[in-house]
Amino acid sequence: MRIVVDVMGGDHGCGVVIEGVRRALDADKKNLTALFLVGNQEEIQAALRSTGLRDERLQVVHASEVMTMEDKPTAAFRKKKDSSMSRAIELVGDGKADAVISLGNTGGILAAATVMLRPLPGVERAGIATVIPGPDNQFVLLDSGANSECKPIHLLQYAVMGSVYSREILGYKKPRVGLLNVGTEETKGNELTQEAFKLCKEIDINFIGNVEGYDLFANRVDVVVCDGFVGNVVLKTCEGLAGAMITMLKQELSRNPKRKLGAYLAQNGLRAIKRRMDPEAYGGAPLLGLNGSVMKCHGSAKERSIMNAIRITTEAVQHQINQTICEELKRATARLAAAKPGTPTSVAA
Amino acid sequence: MRIVVDVMGGDHGCGVVIEGVRRALDADKKNLTALFLVGNQEEIQAALRSTGLRDERLQVVHASEVMTMEDKPTAAFRKKKDSSMSRAIELVGDGKADAVISLGNTGGILAAATVMLRPLPGVERAGIATVIPGPDNQFVLLDSGANSECKPIHLLQYAVMGSVYSREILGYKKPRVGLLNVGTEETKGNELTQEAFKLCKEIDINFIGNVEGYDLFANRVDVVVCDGFVGNVVLKTCEGLAGAMITMLKQELSRNPKRKLGAYLAQNGLRAIKRRMDPEAYGGAPLLGLNGSVMKCHGSAKERSIMNAIRITTEAVQHQINQTICEELKRATARLAAAKPGTPTSVAA
Repeated sequence: MRIVVDVMGGDHGCGVVIEGVRRALDADKKNLTALFLVGNQEEIQAALRSTGLRDERLQVVHASEVMTMEDKPTAAFRKKKDSSMSRAIELVGDGKADAVISLGNTGGILAAATVMLRPLPGVERAGIATVIPGPDNQFVLLDSGANSECKPIHLLQYAVMGSVYSREILGYKKPRVGLLNVGTEETKGNELTQEAFKLCKEIDINFIGNVEGYDLFANRVDVVVCDGFVGNVVLKTCEGLAGAMITMLKQELSRNPKRKLGAYLAQNGLRAIKRRMDPEAYGGAPLLGLNGSVMKCHGSAKERSIMNAIRITTEAVQHQINQTICEELKRATARLAAAKPGTPTSVAA
Repeated sequence: MRIVVDVMGGDHGCGVVIEGVRRALDADKKNLTALFLVGNQEEIQAALRSTGLRDERLQVVHASEVMTMEDKPTAAFRKKKDSSMSRAIELVGDGKADAVISLGNTGGILAAATVMLRPLPGVERAGIATVIPGPDNQFVLLDSGANSECKPIHLLQYAVMGSVYSREILGYKKPRVGLLNVGTEETKGNELTQEAFKLCKEIDINFIGNVEGYDLFANRVDVVVCDGFVGNVVLKTCEGLAGAMITMLKQELSRNPKRKLGAYLAQNGLRAIKRRMDPEAYGGAPLLGLNGSVMKCHGSAKERSIMNAIRITTEAVQHQINQTICEELKRATARLAAAKPGTPTSVAA
């Protein structure tokens, strides 16, 4: 397994990323055969020296530019030819590596990866699949921000890709796939969801129909399908609300000595909640539907996130999820064609 | 002030609603001059006897049918001519009452109220304005479920209506109005939000631009504007996540005797969090933009919710928010026309 890490573009500098790489290399001596660090050579060498990391599997690839959060994705991709992000994705495109991890600008990764790797056969648009922890299960939310203007067929493709990811990576044998909507009846919602519902019920996934916001954290659905606008808003709202509730907990439990003592005694329980809701456990969110494995980490990702992102990316490649996605999409396309003969299913060949 | 309460259609039966009415009548002897209870006469009389409620201000209006949660809104509104919901709204339409409160089917209330009361001048679509408590402020989310297929001008109208509501009812002097989006730059999002952004920045509200999910609970915005699909998903997701976090808190804090003791000592703090996040404090969500005051309560609303809904509805009527909405929309329309002479602003006359 050959992994590329774009070490630039994170909020905490490349040292933190390289420390995450060190942990991943230590944790997996067997499958991880090569690791490319792409970015400013001097910064990388300095970070390697300060972390004391030396490993035969490491290769440093210099890139003179960085795609920043402020860059407009498509324009920057064209202009910054030597960005660490482009160079990193290129290694996968050229077949020199199997998967790439970046902490940079999501739109930039999406633009660069779509152009340089191309979508998988049967996929029109890549989607970002974010794994979100609930009290009793973990669900995949996709698209969580790649594609703000979706067509029904895109949602169908997300349903298939999410189902494969949940099964192969999260271990749900028969993942429950739900369409995020404002009510449970088939006729609810807008044109997009109504049409997508009709498509999803024809194909061979465990489609449970529409789900509502209430269902997400109630262990009723394993794959939540929606357009990238809704998914992104939901994802960020959940992060915001969970953070706000933890802030309130801290405020309220430090208001007087009695509560402080209570919080002290219950501290392992309070920590357990933070741990159970911790997005760092997943390290990042994969861009599904591309001819290559691409993992997007949060800009604020720290060592543990990076390590986990490398681990999960390794698993995704090992499980050949791209191959499975292609096969299942092919079957889905055949089903749709059989259900409505003569109707173009608009799945690219 | 004359308030109508549709006592049918709640999850807990009409007794709970009538107990809420009793509390509201006790709490406001001055402004609340008449209260109509609409529904099955026998059930109402039985509930009045069991709660011991007697008040000169009460009037019972019989209705033989109930709009259920399963009813398809528009069809049921046409078919069930004698539903408590229609009869209740009719009293406002006929000028016999000032405001109506219902726990029934949201789509049904919307359909009946739109037909029977008509939108306010300048409003194309009514919107549901839900007040959501954050740690440090309360924000209005609208539309939270009335209008799944919005045009940019609808979002502009929601921005104005939400701004008026936040100022007049919640007391924010210069409410910060934000457009819910996937990024903060003006060019972010889909066609709807990009166009709505251009409209909102022209008019005389405190428009702070795009906001993201992170901002909602961070005291950065007082009025969150979005289409009814996104708003409904966000609202239900927040309810689901907040509930899940409280469930996890209970699980973790009862896992062993030490944590239990801690939770016991900190119990006032834990209760304070539940209280701070309690949606019952607002009683319900108003349908804004109609020629009459309409408040939709949650189907599961209990006594305190009903009481609060009556109080808030009374305030909304006293503050003449509908009149203010009309004036401000008129000004907004003039501004838009001035900004782009010759462009139809598509605000109904």
